[in-house]
Amino acid sequence: MSGGVAGPDALAPLVSTVLDALVKGAKTRGGPVAPGSPEEAAVAVAEAFHGVGATGAGGHTSQTSQTGHTSPAGQTSQTGHTSPAAHTSPAALDRLTELLAHGSADPADASCAAHLHCPPLAVAVAADLAVSALNPSQDSWDQAPAATVLETLLLQELAELVGYDRERAAGVLTSGGTESNLMGLMLARDRVLGAATGRQIELTGLRPALGARPRILASAVAHFSVQRAAALLGLGEDAVLCVPVDEQLRMDTDALAALLDGCAERGELPIAIVATAGTTDTGSVDPLRACAALAAEHGAWLHVDAAYGGGALLSDRLAPLLDGLELADSLSLDWHKLGWQPAAAGVFLVAESETYASLARRAVYLNPADDEEAGYPSLLGLSLRTTRRADAFKIAVTLRTLGREGLGRLVDACHELALSGARTARNHPCLELYAEPVLTAFVFRYLPVDADEKHGDDEQRSDDINAALRRRLLREGRAVVGRTELPGEGPGRVRLKLTLLNPHTTAEEVERLLLEVVAAGRAEEEAAALR
Amino acid sequence: MSGGVAGPDALAPLVSTVLDALVKGAKTRGGPVAPGSPEEAAVAVAEAFHGVGATGAGGHTSQTSQTGHTSPAGQTSQTGHTSPAAHTSPAALDRLTELLAHGSADPADASCAAHLHCPPLAVAVAADLAVSALNPSQDSWDQAPAATVLETLLLQELAELVGYDRERAAGVLTSGGTESNLMGLMLARDRVLGAATGRQIELTGLRPALGARPRILASAVAHFSVQRAAALLGLGEDAVLCVPVDEQLRMDTDALAALLDGCAERGELPIAIVATAGTTDTGSVDPLRACAALAAEHGAWLHVDAAYGGGALLSDRLAPLLDGLELADSLSLDWHKLGWQPAAAGVFLVAESETYASLARRAVYLNPADDEEAGYPSLLGLSLRTTRRADAFKIAVTLRTLGREGLGRLVDACHELALSGARTARNHPCLELYAEPVLTAFVFRYLPVDADEKHGDDEQRSDDINAALRRRLLREGRAVVGRTELPGEGPGRVRLKLTLLNPHTTAEEVERLLLEVVAAGRAEEEAAALR
Repeated sequence: MSGGVAGPDALAPLVSTVLDALVKGAKTRGGPVAPGSPEEAAVAVAEAFHGVGATGAGGHTSQTSQTGHTSPAGQTSQTGHTSPAAHTSPAALDRLTELLAHGSADPADASCAAHLHCPPLAVAVAADLAVSALNPSQDSWDQAPAATVLETLLLQELAELVGYDRERAAGVLTSGGTESNLMGLMLARDRVLGAATGRQIELTGLRPALGARPRILASAVAHFSVQRAAALLGLGEDAVLCVPVDEQLRMDTDALAALLDGCAERGELPIAIVATAGTTDTGSVDPLRACAALAAEHGAWLHVDAAYGGGALLSDRLAPLLDGLELADSLSLDWHKLGWQPAAAGVFLVAESETYASLARRAVYLNPADDEEAGYPSLLGLSLRTTRRADAFKIAVTLRTLGREGLGRLVDACHELALSGARTARNHPCLELYAEPVLTAFVFRYLPVDADEKHGDDEQRSDDINAALRRRLLREGRAVVGRTELPGEGPGRVRLKLTLLNPHTTAEEVERLLLEVVAAGRAEEEAAALR
Repeated sequence: MSGGVAGPDALAPLVSTVLDALVKGAKTRGGPVAPGSPEEAAVAVAEAFHGVGATGAGGHTSQTSQTGHTSPAGQTSQTGHTSPAAHTSPAALDRLTELLAHGSADPADASCAAHLHCPPLAVAVAADLAVSALNPSQDSWDQAPAATVLETLLLQELAELVGYDRERAAGVLTSGGTESNLMGLMLARDRVLGAATGRQIELTGLRPALGARPRILASAVAHFSVQRAAALLGLGEDAVLCVPVDEQLRMDTDALAALLDGCAERGELPIAIVATAGTTDTGSVDPLRACAALAAEHGAWLHVDAAYGGGALLSDRLAPLLDGLELADSLSLDWHKLGWQPAAAGVFLVAESETYASLARRAVYLNPADDEEAGYPSLLGLSLRTTRRADAFKIAVTLRTLGREGLGRLVDACHELALSGARTARNHPCLELYAEPVLTAFVFRYLPVDADEKHGDDEQRSDDINAALRRRLLREGRAVVGRTELPGEGPGRVRLKLTLLNPHTTAEEVERLLLEVVAAGRAEEEAAALR
């Protein structure tokens, strides 16, 4: 066991095993991702997984242990049955950790730049180890005395960072923007529908008697978790009205106003506006003040999805992009994006703690009323979860180690990288830049050389080549590049994307990565010509 | 950064700092929990949190760093501003880790036995460090090539353990039983209501046109997350019909049958039956076969909440308790309960992968169709989350290190401890045992000595003393004991609970813990007499 005074002694050799295996795996990987097809990778993992250790989960039918398979690192498993004694053999830990490292797409590599998938800071990873070892659970004080207080203090500090009144705001750590967006929309649903029906939605459900169709308004490039939340909440995906965007992919607030007016005319109930502060693909930030004014006018909740853009709050240069964020009723922040935390490090905040009412719960075994009267606080009513890891701890340690200023420099470094990469893409004859970086990402594509000459459907051919070059880079272990589609271009128009979240990457490395894209595009064109 | 070939070198000294600070904190804590009131604990944490490090999150208004406060360990913070260089000072990490350890309720201590809050195995904690360092995210293959495959293989093995067909089953790692229960009920809602309305609920929402009121049936001692899920899903908490329980706190299936018949008569739609395999307080297991037969008869989904009891699958002795589990349409397992994993290690499984349909999602930037055709698998459509930590890894390493047999011995050891503790409680004149342990927990109370003599409302007095003695044990740092209420006793009847999840605890330690309860009860009686 990892706890108590003796726990760290039991942990120390196992942690050494892990660190050594991480190095071995990174070396055999030799780049951002291991070369090979997904099938080859799957076979290697399956062989190692079935090859190490002893009995397996087994189940009602006993399972035969397979041994002797070759690992991606060329090793052979020799482990037999292990005993459940305190000093367990680290063979499986060693082997599977090496396998995980070998088979990772490592965001610490300059050529791994597809997603909002950050390389975590070592100090945050070390802090997270303390959380694993002590295993506090945030659903009751007596499972997490210090961690309960730390989470509350951290959230007050983050509320202040956002511009909320730290005494009036409230929040909770979440698994990420998807859960935070769900929470914001749930509170919006319960508040507005509760008011509309004159009863608490939590007690009545969405009864057939309910008249007006609830609506959520979000831009065409808002995260798909908005639709998912609407479905989960029982409102239906088509409760979400997609608001058109302007040329910079920001919500068109004239269109938003018109859609809101249309709701009023049709007797629909606009329960929430979801503004995005940092869209996944281009980092675009919706006009938050205008959204807030329209939300107030129509009695709708304003939720701001700042899962990506929230990191701009750390940077003096970029923070002005989020002007008006403090007007949101609720918002999502993800410190596992522009915050360099290992997942999960999501944060959900509301401006006014009393709007949290519909989640409040009294569980006799977790937060009895007389314990709360006796001064034992409970975070249970702030989360959709019950058992909950103390994800606040690593964020608190990171903030105290680097400070806002130190983290802001990391944000600025990534922003510079994106600006520099976009310049390269704009100037290269074989690349086409779509959107200037707002935060740390930009969208582009490879332009086939002989686009205009032989082929009828050039767009389709470009899409095929861009999709294939990206898979080629993955398969050859050279780069992990993102792809997406842009609004107004119709489905299937393949665009590539770089999301730069590693502040240690250099501008030269980004340029080399773009040249890899060009080379892979050429190779795909040649391969297509031979077919 | 923690990744790459160089990452482990950056991590090593920070990990040492953490291990040392964990020892320091455990020593100054000196028991299951630090002595003191919750207010005192909060003040100490706030002083340390504001005292270390430099700039804080700051926000729009700059924040003054407070230094010089005294930590619970008697140290003084001396850290000034730190730079965001690669080699950061570990002062904040050291100080806050010690604080977290000092202010934890440590489940590795024999006297910390309140909740389903397990001491994690060192090997699982070490494996989780690899996950933090590499930061794979399970929402797309190109963020987690090996981890995607490992999760799939682990789930197949767990499906087999449950008795499912491993090729037909599907599932996902979750944050715990609450999320798993939500997923089961969401699929039940979408399947049955989709069929009833002839349309997919995910596309239509719970329209006013929907006729029959949806119902969920769960026992009176099912986890409160069932009601929470009903509220979140828009069905309303009162969509849950509480089924009475028998003397052993198992669902009364005659009563269930009658309630189902009642639904039919009232034109209500029983969308799901939630059976519990291991209730939180007493570990009771509902009759799974009978529940499955009734679910089939009434066209309802059977979800089994085996978050606690699923651990019995690891034990030859206890596995028969779960007879019929394989008949569930979906189920919840939590390896951060009887599985000794650091949170989170929840698992959601369905028997038939096609029933997952309503969650399927195509996000152009995560799982484009042509990538899937090219062999790149995606787990996105299996989870409610987007970014998702690779919690499967630590479970896989643990299974391969200890095997089912090794883990089963840990389960049996905890079961023995509970039987032995229950014997002690039954035989002690000042203790009253309520429910025999089914798994590893039992419910009891302290009996005030002069109960019958001077006081009119003996039950109220017993409740006050039991609640107060538990807080006294916490305040004095002597023990963390659970409390709950039992069905049929009316609200406010305080019962105590021990949940034994530490296989290294001895029967003598459990006996001593119960004697601490008696001593604290006496002390509360004396204190009450003086008032």
